[in-house]
Amino acid sequence: MSQDNLTAVLYKTKDLRLEQTPIPEIDDDEVLLRMDCVGICGSDVHYWQTGACGAFVMHEPMIMGHEASGVVAKIGSKVKNLAVGDRVAIEPGVPCRYCEFCKTGRYHLCPDMRFCATPPIHGNLARYYKHAADFCYKLPPHVTMEEGALLEPLSVGIHACRRGGVQAGQSVLVLGAGPIGLVTMLAARAMGASKILITDILQSRLDFAKQLGADHTILVTKEASEDQLVQEVRRLLGDSPEVSIDASGAQATVRLALLATKSGGVAVLVGMGSPELTVPLAGSVAREVDIRGIFRYVNEYPIALSMVASGQINVKPLVSHHYSLEETLEAYEVARKGLGIKVMIHVQPRDANNPQS
Amino acid sequence: MSQDNLTAVLYKTKDLRLEQTPIPEIDDDEVLLRMDCVGICGSDVHYWQTGACGAFVMHEPMIMGHEASGVVAKIGSKVKNLAVGDRVAIEPGVPCRYCEFCKTGRYHLCPDMRFCATPPIHGNLARYYKHAADFCYKLPPHVTMEEGALLEPLSVGIHACRRGGVQAGQSVLVLGAGPIGLVTMLAARAMGASKILITDILQSRLDFAKQLGADHTILVTKEASEDQLVQEVRRLLGDSPEVSIDASGAQATVRLALLATKSGGVAVLVGMGSPELTVPLAGSVAREVDIRGIFRYVNEYPIALSMVASGQINVKPLVSHHYSLEETLEAYEVARKGLGIKVMIHVQPRDANNPQS
Amino acid sequence: MSQDNLTAVLYKTKDLRLEQTPIPEIDDDEVLLRMDCVGICGSDVHYWQTGACGAFVMHEPMIMGHEASGVVAKIGSKVKNLAVGDRVAIEPGVPCRYCEFCKTGRYHLCPDMRFCATPPIHGNLARYYKHAADFCYKLPPHVTMEEGALLEPLSVGIHACRRGGVQAGQSVLVLGAGPIGLVTMLAARAMGASKILITDILQSRLDFAKQLGADHTILVTKEASEDQLVQEVRRLLGDSPEVSIDASGAQATVRLALLATKSGGVAVLVGMGSPELTVPLAGSVAREVDIRGIFRYVNEYPIALSMVASGQINVKPLVSHHYSLEETLEAYEVARKGLGIKVMIHVQPRDANNPQS
Amino acid sequence: MSQDNLTAVLYKTKDLRLEQTPIPEIDDDEVLLRMDCVGICGSDVHYWQTGACGAFVMHEPMIMGHEASGVVAKIGSKVKNLAVGDRVAIEPGVPCRYCEFCKTGRYHLCPDMRFCATPPIHGNLARYYKHAADFCYKLPPHVTMEEGALLEPLSVGIHACRRGGVQAGQSVLVLGAGPIGLVTMLAARAMGASKILITDILQSRLDFAKQLGADHTILVTKEASEDQLVQEVRRLLGDSPEVSIDASGAQATVRLALLATKSGGVAVLVGMGSPELTVPLAGSVAREVDIRGIFRYVNEYPIALSMVASGQINVKPLVSHHYSLEETLEAYEVARKGLGIKVMIHVQPRDANNPQS
Repeated sequence: MSQDNLTAVLYKTKDLRLEQTPIPEIDDDEVLLRMDCVGICGSDVHYWQTGACGAFVMHEPMIMGHEASGVVAKIGSKVKNLAVGDRVAIEPGVPCRYCEFCKTGRYHLCPDMRFCATPPIHGNLARYYKHAADFCYKLPPHVTMEEGALLEPLSVGIHACRRGGVQAGQSVLVLGAGPIGLVTMLAARAMGASKILITDILQSRLDFAKQLGADHTILVTKEASEDQLVQEVRRLLGDSPEVSIDASGAQATVRLALLATKSGGVAVLVGMGSPELTVPLAGSVAREVDIRGIFRYVNEYPIALSMVASGQINVKPLVSHHYSLEETLEAYEVARKGLGIKVMIHVQPRDANNPQS
Repeated sequence: MSQDNLTAVLYKTKDLRLEQTPIPEIDDDEVLLRMDCVGICGSDVHYWQTGACGAFVMHEPMIMGHEASGVVAKIGSKVKNLAVGDRVAIEPGVPCRYCEFCKTGRYHLCPDMRFCATPPIHGNLARYYKHAADFCYKLPPHVTMEEGALLEPLSVGIHACRRGGVQAGQSVLVLGAGPIGLVTMLAARAMGASKILITDILQSRLDFAKQLGADHTILVTKEASEDQLVQEVRRLLGDSPEVSIDASGAQATVRLALLATKSGGVAVLVGMGSPELTVPLAGSVAREVDIRGIFRYVNEYPIALSMVASGQINVKPLVSHHYSLEETLEAYEVARKGLGIKVMIHVQPRDANNPQS
Repeated sequence: MSQDNLTAVLYKTKDLRLEQTPIPEIDDDEVLLRMDCVGICGSDVHYWQTGACGAFVMHEPMIMGHEASGVVAKIGSKVKNLAVGDRVAIEPGVPCRYCEFCKTGRYHLCPDMRFCATPPIHGNLARYYKHAADFCYKLPPHVTMEEGALLEPLSVGIHACRRGGVQAGQSVLVLGAGPIGLVTMLAARAMGASKILITDILQSRLDFAKQLGADHTILVTKEASEDQLVQEVRRLLGDSPEVSIDASGAQATVRLALLATKSGGVAVLVGMGSPELTVPLAGSVAREVDIRGIFRYVNEYPIALSMVASGQINVKPLVSHHYSLEETLEAYEVARKGLGIKVMIHVQPRDANNPQS
Repeated sequence: MSQDNLTAVLYKTKDLRLEQTPIPEIDDDEVLLRMDCVGICGSDVHYWQTGACGAFVMHEPMIMGHEASGVVAKIGSKVKNLAVGDRVAIEPGVPCRYCEFCKTGRYHLCPDMRFCATPPIHGNLARYYKHAADFCYKLPPHVTMEEGALLEPLSVGIHACRRGGVQAGQSVLVLGAGPIGLVTMLAARAMGASKILITDILQSRLDFAKQLGADHTILVTKEASEDQLVQEVRRLLGDSPEVSIDASGAQATVRLALLATKSGGVAVLVGMGSPELTVPLAGSVAREVDIRGIFRYVNEYPIALSMVASGQINVKPLVSHHYSLEETLEAYEVARKGLGIKVMIHVQPRDANNPQS
């Protein structure tokens, strides 16, 4: 095994460096991974630019990266589900396995969760990385390493739709056409949503969403009143949506989600920009519109993999930029500027581990 | 049948009158009821004092009353579930039976719901009143007419607990110890909640809640910070409550519900004081605390009746004042002043239709 | 309006006649329909051949037909959802609207259900037929009358999948590749099932299922032991299916459903051949495999219509034979022989009410 | 620490011996327990008499005991939830923590579950026993060690009721008034069931059930037909039960559960006597009566403890016999003869660790 372990370490705000780190030693239930693809997420850019993301704050240097795939280089003595050479998608959070959240199937709420690139836990943007074997999912031969890395954001979209209870035949409103809005839209469609309307403040994003399968789009402008937007949603869908999913986090979109959702429906909030929001709760209460937040995902990696492997969800078009590990700073710069959709870093030569097409 | 049909009609704000109205004619699927007990609800006082309640506004004179029981005086030709002389509790809302809400078991969200004493629909504070037979529930011989009337607020409490998914062994936080808070507490206990903590700003209400079975109480003062209250809730319950139910509608209690509820739990909002609230949504989203509003009740009258008939819930202590129909204005005055808990108006002589104790 | 009301009346076992009947008078909440397409169902053939189907027994002549679409010819005074000329799919069962099943969203279990061509209720294989307006669903312009009629069996398939809790990413085993097995397969796919395995005793049916989208098939022969079949299911799907749906009703397939389903999964039974079955319950109990029967469908017509209108489900290939109303006996004969998949009777000239392609 | 570790070892069928075994060494996440109370379960008697229970077969000597409580004598280095001297109830099954069942909150279905006194895993009827610390639940000071041991059967009853979806106001039919039937009845009541009817073939058991709170009982005789029993259930409950729970495992009671349950309700099967049963499935399918098996319990120990600690469930009357560890053979003999309800073995002097009353 090569001793090269080039690693992307965020030292502090705006101080991201590539440097050598030791190759980790594995435990009995772990595998060592030769990393392949690592996507850049909005949270990565947040840490880089501000040293924090929501309630999580960096206090020490941290290795970046959590949307990733790799190849098994070594396995622990108790590992049975994987073999050296297996290509895997990496679910980046490993819970404690002992608390009530772990036991009741909601391990994503485990207070002792160790999640890649969430302080103080290191991520996997490096040549080598070790991980709990049972949170690595073997990719079938026809699934690419890029798809493996994209299971991470896709799992968020699937979790949002499952929390929203998206069902066959429903109308779904997705607010925000960034990467999370897009994977949410793909997940909703694959779960049977008949009509999907997506909104954004950028026409270019809506155009892309339309290509990916959105039935309807609304370009939200400052001039449009909430009432007008609610009416426009109804007009386009023929009725109010059973489920609205906010993938933007702005107060305006959260408000629209509450106002536009059908009585008895669900408004899903994927993430919040500011800690406090002023919202028209009385109306949603009186119409029994449930409000459900989501935090990452839980038990959704296997679903995401099945959907991608079966061709029911095609995430490939989401990757707009490709960089090598050595070009990490350039890649982050592109992600920061919001150019394209998903920026992918290739730790190994691109397509080295991909199926021959 | 007597031709006396003394009726409590609200003409406009602060103009409540007792006057004769015609005895109604019944349809094939209706019954005529000789009214017995009619409780006064907070919404009744709102209409009386302001001519409105939430989004509902009075435009014409309206007969008051919706927490009621009566005796069947006449039955329509198609009525099979009731006979003349039956003592019944009256579920006050009758839906359209045709829309998607009616067909999917959420008839309380029916947009064409006709609900007693919600404008422009008349209530039942009168000698005689007609109602859909299938929304009248025959009382077993040992259940009193007062209990029959109290099934209405109790159904709200049961609905709140069912929406909150209250389960055996859980800790439940109830915010507000007024009539709705109290019936919610009784319902939560009967559904198996092991620890119930109730809060209020009046010690007298908390004392009464304790008598009714609360395990813990917190007297909320202006001095207490949100953090302190959250810590106090945890200290008393030994952990955060799985379910919090706000029966107050104030911004402060809604905020506390969101902050205090356990990760992955549910905050139920029974009603709202003002249309817009500023709330710490980011935190509840990141902890996947669901927010569920409730609107009245649906399919809960039979449950409420079963629970009262079996003795599992005792609502009798809730009635603090008794008045005759002729004393309606005095009764409303007592209710307006917030004296006691539940003010009951007896349209017929008290205990006339009750079991001999 | 023409006075011709040619009608297919089953007088008694094997005595199906075409004859004139009076055009029905409509009630306030009903519509009169000029019928267009009426499919033949297995139950229709059962009544024709034996005078009974399961627990339902004919005692008087009965008009056949329940998988149907038509055009609104007249509307009752209270009808708001439809206008004369509307093309509609007809949900054939109209419940009482008053009982607890109707109020709790399970109207298909209403004991007073009036269901087309289920004794003693007449069906709609006639020129004219009246129906409750709210159980008629307006077809969008691009949906054909044949598709409208096929919403009936499709609703059964959707109900089976919803009862089974079919979710994105799951493996589903469908037992029996007749019309119900096929619509179940289509529904499962549209709800996100990643892998679908279908079984039958006829290779021709499996070939057709494969064309319609089955991932895997098993031809069940008498030689195969239960153990071998369970192993083969696992081998093909890579694991045991989360949901098994028996669309055959034979003891052998019910047994296989129980044995093959993953621990904690669901075995759905769509219908039963004989009243008593001998099944390996101990094993399914110890593995917590739920057994859920289904009876028709409930609130699934709107879903079926959405899925067909959006193109997510294509039912058109299911129609294998076309006959005119006058050829009804010939059509029934073809259905009895099990030739093809779905036999469609055209009460009006074929394509008369269909979109121009 | 004493070196005495007297242990009850089942060598083979009918060969149960008391002998010294080594005191176990603990791992980092384990505790060593000085055992206090160990109840005898029907499965224990099965192993003793036949060397097997259902699909589980003994091949080597096995230590008995799984309904138990103890006192912490030593803690592993990573244990945070317990301290030496804590009195605990022991959930006897420890799952692998890695498989999909463990991750989705259904760890009781983990194929690598290690469950006390289920071959080849040893039980805890000994002076000392080690266990995973997170599956030990600290008892509040007022809860007795006997109650701690009884959480095990109580968890079965709670799991049965939760799987059955027992809700406030429902009628519940419990078939079989042995220990499991009785704890099921207690759980159903505490979860809000308004009417509980219990059946058995022994009047003495029904009398005891009545004392414990059953509303109605039926003594099942050989003369009674299924139809008569179904009618009698309806007569006593006023309607069919929403939930039926079979705690007997006989074909006759399983059949009655299917036949007697209300349409749309649930029949829960707690355990099966023989691998194959002949049942009237067609009827339950057509009425959408769900059949749900149960296997042990999952996440129910904390609920059971809360319910006992709060006084909502009183399990104390279930203990009919008390023996010391040295009297184990006598205790098993009493259990085998079916005398009394629950036989408790005291490994330490009775009440040594109990609250002073």
